This record gives sequence, C-alpha cells and structure tokens, in this order.
Amino acid sequence: MGIVLGDDQYGKAETRVVRIYRDTDRHEIRDLNVSTALRGAFAAAYLAGDQANVLPTDSQKNTCFAYARSHGVGAIEDYALTLADHFTQDIEPVTAAQVAVDEYRWERVAVHGVPHAHTFVRAGHEVRTTTVTVEAGEAGEAGEAGGRWVISGLRDLIVLKSTGSEFAGFLTDRYTTLAETDDRILATSLTARWRYAGTDVAWDDAFAQIRQILLERFAVLHSKALQQSLWEMGSAVLAAREDIAEIRLSAPNKHHFLVDLTPFGLDNPGEVFYAADRPYGLIQCAVGRDGAPPAGPAWAGPGTFC
Amino acid sequence: MGIVLGDDQYGKAETRVVRIYRDTDRHEIRDLNVSTALRGAFAAAYLAGDQANVLPTDSQKNTCFAYARSHGVGAIEDYALTLADHFTQDIEPVTAAQVAVDEYRWERVAVHGVPHAHTFVRAGHEVRTTTVTVEAGEAGEAGEAGGRWVISGLRDLIVLKSTGSEFAGFLTDRYTTLAETDDRILATSLTARWRYAGTDVAWDDAFAQIRQILLERFAVLHSKALQQSLWEMGSAVLAAREDIAEIRLSAPNKHHFLVDLTPFGLDNPGEVFYAADRPYGLIQCAVGRDGAPPAGPAWAGPGTFC
Amino acid sequence: MGIVLGDDQYGKAETRVVRIYRDTDRHEIRDLNVSTALRGAFAAAYLAGDQANVLPTDSQKNTCFAYARSHGVGAIEDYALTLADHFTQDIEPVTAAQVAVDEYRWERVAVHGVPHAHTFVRAGHEVRTTTVTVEAGEAGEAGEAGGRWVISGLRDLIVLKSTGSEFAGFLTDRYTTLAETDDRILATSLTARWRYAGTDVAWDDAFAQIRQILLERFAVLHSKALQQSLWEMGSAVLAAREDIAEIRLSAPNKHHFLVDLTPFGLDNPGEVFYAADRPYGLIQCAVGRDGAPPAGPAWAGPGTFC
Amino acid sequence: MGIVLGDDQYGKAETRVVRIYRDTDRHEIRDLNVSTALRGAFAAAYLAGDQANVLPTDSQKNTCFAYARSHGVGAIEDYALTLADHFTQDIEPVTAAQVAVDEYRWERVAVHGVPHAHTFVRAGHEVRTTTVTVEAGEAGEAGEAGGRWVISGLRDLIVLKSTGSEFAGFLTDRYTTLAETDDRILATSLTARWRYAGTDVAWDDAFAQIRQILLERFAVLHSKALQQSLWEMGSAVLAAREDIAEIRLSAPNKHHFLVDLTPFGLDNPGEVFYAADRPYGLIQCAVGRDGAPPAGPAWAGPGTFC
Repeated sequence: MGIVLGDDQYGKAETRVVRIYRDTDRHEIRDLNVSTALRGAFAAAYLAGDQANVLPTDSQKNTCFAYARSHGVGAIEDYALTLADHFTQDIEPVTAAQVAVDEYRWERVAVHGVPHAHTFVRAGHEVRTTTVTVEAGEAGEAGEAGGRWVISGLRDLIVLKSTGSEFAGFLTDRYTTLAETDDRILATSLTARWRYAGTDVAWDDAFAQIRQILLERFAVLHSKALQQSLWEMGSAVLAAREDIAEIRLSAPNKHHFLVDLTPFGLDNPGEVFYAADRPYGLIQCAVGRDGAPPAGPAWAGPGTFC
Repeated sequence: MGIVLGDDQYGKAETRVVRIYRDTDRHEIRDLNVSTALRGAFAAAYLAGDQANVLPTDSQKNTCFAYARSHGVGAIEDYALTLADHFTQDIEPVTAAQVAVDEYRWERVAVHGVPHAHTFVRAGHEVRTTTVTVEAGEAGEAGEAGGRWVISGLRDLIVLKSTGSEFAGFLTDRYTTLAETDDRILATSLTARWRYAGTDVAWDDAFAQIRQILLERFAVLHSKALQQSLWEMGSAVLAAREDIAEIRLSAPNKHHFLVDLTPFGLDNPGEVFYAADRPYGLIQCAVGRDGAPPAGPAWAGPGTFC
Repeated sequence: MGIVLGDDQYGKAETRVVRIYRDTDRHEIRDLNVSTALRGAFAAAYLAGDQANVLPTDSQKNTCFAYARSHGVGAIEDYALTLADHFTQDIEPVTAAQVAVDEYRWERVAVHGVPHAHTFVRAGHEVRTTTVTVEAGEAGEAGEAGGRWVISGLRDLIVLKSTGSEFAGFLTDRYTTLAETDDRILATSLTARWRYAGTDVAWDDAFAQIRQILLERFAVLHSKALQQSLWEMGSAVLAAREDIAEIRLSAPNKHHFLVDLTPFGLDNPGEVFYAADRPYGLIQCAVGRDGAPPAGPAWAGPGTFC
Repeated sequence: MGIVLGDDQYGKAETRVVRIYRDTDRHEIRDLNVSTALRGAFAAAYLAGDQANVLPTDSQKNTCFAYARSHGVGAIEDYALTLADHFTQDIEPVTAAQVAVDEYRWERVAVHGVPHAHTFVRAGHEVRTTTVTVEAGEAGEAGEAGGRWVISGLRDLIVLKSTGSEFAGFLTDRYTTLAETDDRILATSLTARWRYAGTDVAWDDAFAQIRQILLERFAVLHSKALQQSLWEMGSAVLAAREDIAEIRLSAPNKHHFLVDLTPFGLDNPGEVFYAADRPYGLIQCAVGRDGAPPAGPAWAGPGTFC
C-alpha cells in the first residue's frame, strides 16, 4: 500500500507583539502572543526539500510586527482577520491560513486614585483568545471555499464557589468509595471558546458580555454537578447572543477536599480544605444551535494536530 | 433556533500510578500518568443535574489503581485497552471510553558498573504516550461500533544536528529579510503519534523500533528543511511496519541563531549560537497509507476538545 | 580533617490550605500555600538514622490544617507566627522554626454589579508572601534567643511603563554595542520583601500601603534606569513606615525591544515592540535603615539553602 | 534614622549559549545557560540615576558569546572563572563578579549502533551547575580580597528506591497520624552543590566522580530516613575528595503513597502507589570539613537575594 503525505501545516508560533498607542499622553497597550499557520501547495517541501513555495516562518513573524504598525491592533479578532486575509490573498501557494492570538490584560496603576497615563499592572491569569481561519478564494458562505471563521474565547479563568454545589445520586460500581455531599467547594480553571456565526461583530463588547454571562451563571446557579454548570453557562451565552453559533467549555474540577480534623478533636463544618493538584476531574461539553452555519476547518489547527 | 447539547465527555485526568513489580529481588517500575474520558448517555447530567448515569471520576481513578494490581501494568497499550474495555463493557451508560497514558522512563543506577536491583534514576525528558479508544458493542471493524483504536507515540524528544541542515531557495515577499543558509543547526522537540491498524502488536518492541527509526532518519538525512526531515522520518516508520496506518509529527523549530561576533573582531564559523525561546517555527505533517482502516474517533479526545 | 554535619533543617513544603469563613452568608476565603521548616536537635537522624527527635513532616502538615480551624487564619503573618510559636514552644527538640506562607488573591464575582456572597474569581498573578522565623526561648530582643522576625512581601507583580524611562551615559567596553535611548518601555516582574522591626503591626493594612507605594513610585518616577526605580521604591517604603527595618527588591528587566520596521518601509516611533523571554537583566538592591534591629536568621531559609 | 542603600548587584541572567566544536567531523556540543552578576561602585546608579559606572547587561551578554569563541568553553567551571576574572580585572568599578552556569547534557544518537558525528539527543532532566565568585584584587587566600571560589553541583537528579527505606521510631505529638513503615518507596529530586577548596581541579572528572558517589550511596544505603541518606551521600563525597570543602544537599521527599485497595477486595504488598505532587517533605543538610577554608561570599548571589 502506498505511503502518502496527509495533512500538513506550518507557521510561526508565539510571536510576542506589544503594541503601544501613544497618540495622546494617555497611552494604550495591547500585549499579544501571535501564532500563524499556513496550508496550501507545500507538498514539494516535504517530499523533495523544495522550498520554492515556502514563505519562511521568519517572514510570517515580520508580517505580524509590520501589520501591528501599518494596520494597527484593535480587537484581536480584527488583527487576526487582517493577517489571515493577507496570507490567503497575497501569498500565492496558500489555500488557508489560521491566526491565533492570545491577549494578556493590563490595568492602569492608580496614583492617588487616578489611573496613570502610561503605567500598567498585569491583571489576572486569564487570557483572552481568538483563532481565525480564512480560506483563499472569493468570499463565500462559511463552509465553502472563501470561508472565514472566528472562534474567540478565554482560558485560565479561575473561579470558585464556597457553597451552592452538591454531588449526589450518582451511579456507583464496585470501585466507588466516594460519599455523596450536599455542600462542597466547586472550583475550576475555565477554558471557553465560542464560534461566531459571522464576522460583523463588535468584538470587544461581545467578549466582555460573554465573559460576564459565564461568571454570573457560574455564581448564581446552585450546581448539582460541574456538568450542569457548564451547560447553564454555555446555553446562557447562546441565548443572549444570536451571533454565536456554538460554544465549547472545558473545565477541570479543581478538587478541594474537606480535611478530616476529628483525630485532633476538631469538627470541620465546611471551613478547612486541602486544594489538590492531581488528579482532577475534567468535564467538557459543547452547546450548539440548530441550523447554525457549519464549523468547517475552524476548530482544527496546530494545537490539535497531534 | 434551538439551543442543544453537543459533544460531551468527562473523566479523571492525570492519575499518577506507580507500579512496582517485586516478584524477585530485581524490581521493575512502571511510572504512569493516566487519564480517562467517557462518552455516553450523560445528557441528563448537563440538562437537569441528574447524576443517575454518572460514574464519579473518583471511581474511575480508583479503577486505575485497582486494575494496576488486579490486572497488572504491562505495556501501557495493554493497560489502557483493559481499562477502556472495562468501562465500555461494565458501565452501562458508557458508549465510548478513551484512556490516555503517559509513561516516564527510568534507568537502573549502576553500582560499581552493575545495574542496581531496586534503585532507579529518571531517564530523559522524553515521554512515551498512548491513547486508546474503545466503543461499546460487539467487536467489529475499526470504524464501526465496537471499534478499538490505539494511537501511540512520544513527546519531548529533543534532538539536534549541528550540521547537515540548510534552508534556501524559499519564497520571498516584501516582509522577507531572512538570509539563505547552507549550514545551520537544526533542533526540535519532537511529538510523534502513530495509529496502529490493529491491536495484535508487541507494543514495547514496536515503540523501541519506531523511536529508533525516527532518531536515525533525523540523524542521517541531509535536511533541506524540517518539513523534509519530518516526511522522511514518518515515511520510514510506515515503510518498516505494515501495522502502522498513519503517523502524525509536530516539530517546533527550536531556532539556534549564529551570533554576529564581528563587532568584537571575531569570526564565527558555525561555532557560537544563541538558543532562542520564542517565537519558533512549528511544522506539522501527517504521513498515511493508502487503504488504511479509518481513524474514526481515535484522534479526538480531551486534549483537542477546545 | 574531620567530616562534620553543618546546617540542617527539614519540614513540609507547599501544604495548600484553603480556609472558608462562613459565619454569615457572605463568605470569606483565604487561599494559602504553607511551608514549615524546623531546626534543632536533629543530628542523630542524619548521623545514625535515629528519628526519636523527628516530628514527621506529615504531622507538621496536619498542624497547618488543624490550626486553620482551631486558631483561624487572619493575616498570613499572624497565622505563621502562631504556627512557629507552637513548634518552638511545644516540640521539645526544636530550637527554631520558620513558616513561609504564600497567599493567592481572590475577588468577588459581580452579579448585576453586586459582589457575590460566595463566588470568587482569582485576581492577578501576584502573590502575597510572608516568612516568619521564631527561636525557642524567652521572648527577647530580635537577634537574641527567643527572637521573632517577620519578613513579608510580594512576588510576580508585573508592571510596565510605556514611556518615562531612559538608559544612557553608561560605561562602555569593547563588548558594548547597545545604543543609548531616551525613551523605552520599562517592565519588570517585581519581587519585594521587607522586614518588620517588630510584630505589633496591622499586617493587612501595612501590606496594602506598601504595595501601593511601590506601584506609585514606579509609575511617577521618570526612570534613568531600573536601579534608580528600585531605590526610589524601596526608600519610599522606609520613609512611609517606621516599622520597616529594611526592604529587598529583585527585578528582572523584561526587555521590550523596538522592532526595526525600516526594511518594510515603516517607521516605528515607540509603537511596536518584541517582548523577549531570555536573557533578561536582573537588578537587585536592599534599602536599609541605620540603627535597625539585626536580621538574625530571618533571611536564611529553605529557599536559600543551596 | 537614615535610609541607606544596602547590598546590590546586577547582571544579565539566562544567556543561552550553545557552543559547537567542529574541528573534526565529529562535533562536540556545550549547551549552557549563563548568568552574570556584578558588585562594585554602583551606588550612583541607584541614588542618582547616574550610569557612568554601569556596564550594560547587554555588554555582559555579548561578552558571554564572544568569550565562547575567543576563549572557548571547556568545563563550565573554567569558562565561568575566565568570565569572572575578566569582569573583575577589566571593568574598573567591579569589585566582585559572580558567574553561574547551567549545563544541559546531550548524548549522541546511535545509528546502527554507532554514535553519530553531529546528531544529539537531550539526556535527562538533570542539570550540571556551577557558580563562580571572584573578587577584584591580587589573588589571595580564599576569603580575602582577591578570592576565587567555585561551587559546583547538579539539580533535578530524580532518583527512586522501590525498597530499602523505612521510617519509624519518630517523635509523635497530638497532630501525628502517620503510621510507621519498614518498607516504602523513597524518591527525591536532588539538588547538590559542593564547594571546592581551590581551583586547580579536573572539573569534568570531579563532577563525574561526585555524581556517581551520590547515586551509589543513595542506592546502597538501607535508609532509615531521607536525612540519613543525605548525610551518607554528602560525607562519602568529602571522604573521597580532599579538594571538596563542603557540600550542601536539598531533597524534596517525593511521596509515593501506598494505595489502600481493600475496598476492592485486593491486597497491596508494596506494588501500587500514588505519586503525590504537593505537599512534600523538604530535607536539607550541609556536610563540612573541619579546617576548610572559609566560604566568603560564595554561597550568596542573585538566587538568594530575596
């Protein structure tokens, strides 16, 4: 049986672009980690070591920096779309481009209560993300050649409820020793990614709204399990925004075990916990919308390649 | 448009199982990181907080430990298949189970040149991996209900060639500043995963052979680019083993930049390099076999969910 | 020459204690990483394997949890002092105890603008720290037997100024290629630790004040180098608080290099930067007070042992 | 009371120098992470922002690269001494220099059983280290002005004994719940640093011998506790080499807990363990030699500053 080249892609990962806007004395900062990946007519590079079609990853890096100056960096979705459009339109062998951007948040340092004009402090672990996929060709419907997809999201959003969570009534087998509980800590480090149905979106506003919905639903829901919380969070996002086609959520259950203090003559009414590292539960679900446009190649990419 | 639950899975991630074999004074060690993921009739847990079908992730963890005693840990592929078969056969709501295992390598400490019977030192960064997917139902062909798939691999295999690598003749655009080179350092931290066509395999021997092929092809090939190296490495594996259906390779190009020493009155004939962290090229390709059985759900899993 | 046992210490590191206060519906959370280290009459454990004087590290861990219930966790300095007093007073062979605590910050999730009673989101990378050292014996002056020292601080406070920083007029040698600049980005991930002169301190207020002084001085100072910024930050803390004996600051210079865009026909007036990982400058200084009580063993500890 | 500048130092951290020796077709590689720190007449930089005495950290980085070409990189101790001598002799304001080097190990890839001439694979987690301290002035006795000190070592040497370790007869208090054991897994990730009495040493041979002694003593000793193992390992090094003045060892007790399988009807005779992450015991001790030359400033440095 013949041995054949399958999927392939290449690009420059983790270009750390920092863009300062200094049009006035009050500076703005955009702090990004940019990764590009190209697909196209690159088989000869693999099969014969022929680079004639291969735009160096170094050039892709240069493009990320140059576009940050020539086109600016607004919302990361716009920046990524502009880059992906460039690669598919201007680089002949490219049939599809994917640009992924992580954004790190900064807050202004307050001096005597007044936000400072050009001094910032990093805010939170949380990272805002986007992955844009563009296919070469005439702009068509998503899913056809010429498609453009935007998946945005966040990761490392660490949240915790100190009550309002239970876990009971579960299936048991011969390896089950877990006791039921009607009051526990529920904590996770949330990854969420949502696919927009189109690209005519006020990206920054959308991100802020979706993040807030996720937090509020997590807070308000009395949770019978992390599964239920994820569904409620995801479906609330879709209910609030018609322009979201689907959302995917991945949530490690960061276990906080109630410490048994009875050997020391102490009770422990939900007050002292041991925060464990590993193992952890890992709960994942997708929430979609009937009739939404297809995802095409939007979810695939370097991070899922192997 | 209706909002609906899409894909979902849950399990226990990163259970650190260490298995000592002490049947004789010469102990053996298997040091594993085990993750389980179940799919099946779990919608009620999401939609209604009903856990009646949900086997706790804590029970899955217990099962990993118990099976390490009752069934033993031989090759990680066998251990993972046994666990996945158990979940799909014995836990009613489960329609598919995926078990992923990382194995850390240990070598015996030599005492006066003699390998010690029960003292070990961790060998290498490199991790051996497997991901086993089993569907409930009568054992059928791969790709049908009752399918069983094994994807094995390695990651963090850091290799470097100090010569025998070039990069020239590439496509240029207005953002290209890179110079051609006919002699550079080529280094990567390889991730490789290969899918077996079946499950009747001498796993440990296969792993050792494939790892060696990957290393030797990387060493021997005069590389015109990392793309060519990956193709040559992957196709050599498929040429050597009929039981491999496909292999996927992901290779960051860990750039080593020749330092310009001319400001200090020194030449630098390929001797002093700066090893950069970020950004890095990222080259990925799959090598397949015509007519191989289909991969079904084998490549999907918790790590690619979102 | 004789071979002799020198310094030694042992303890339990990184016990992850989470304490929930739920006296009212509005819960409070303290999220801690606690490490203990004991010194004393432990030579026989090293020289002869005799554990008669060795309180297991497991017992030390249990004590951290039990005290979180029986004595509570207020300011981390009080919690650490209480633990260290216990070890030195109640465990016969112990001559000195050191307890180090990291605290992770949480903020309340806002629901419709109202802070939630029991749902929290992790705030910032930044970690609040304390290291308490207590010697057994009658409470005496700091530096004598019976001394008690408190060093508090913070780490991973990532700050950045997009202007207001220069670097010029420096010493040059034959290996100098750096150009002078009168406008650059200045960024660091600050570690600061300050030693209190005594233990009668409103710890939480002191921490908040000192953190704010560090941020404000960093923001307001037009910096001629990171060295100057550190001195100004440290001396401002000592000027504001008579109860601080000294402060030590460690600051990696997280380089942001202005990208040369001229090959692409673009200028770059301080707008597009490349954020580098390694190497980085590392600037460290101590600011002290004449006549302050001596530090004794307060700065030494497990993290500096070897 | 007056506010005064205390200790200060500055330098360039983590310059990643890779040196290839290609004098013959059989290449050699030295893969280093180099950090420099200077002390001297730098107060004006802190107090007044005056850089006239400050050699940029960028120049220090350049020096590391240039010296790798002009002076070569042999043993890391020689390379670090040469750099530290340069800074103290050639840079006027410098009164003391410290150069720390980490070295990553590579092994040759075997091709048909023959070690390859220019292809290498990274070997082990373990890092070889050195920290060299040199004071300006006429070469004198160690401890005087003009002193030169070499502390070498290793870290991340992960070792495990599957038997031959016990822990019993320990002190108990009201918080003790740990059971005694006469057979357990003993595992650690060793950091060891030893100070040479002088600088006339065959560094590579010394390193290899000391590493082997540490491994063999760990293996052979029936251990009554990690404390005893450390003492035996350290004192064996000093017994074997008169040129070692002292050795310091730091060893996290990487707990492997025997899993209780009785709920599942299984025994567990030392076969199935759970490898825990945190908390961990941390055991540290120094082994010295009567009459050894003093350590002076050799143990202090950037890593212990605050």
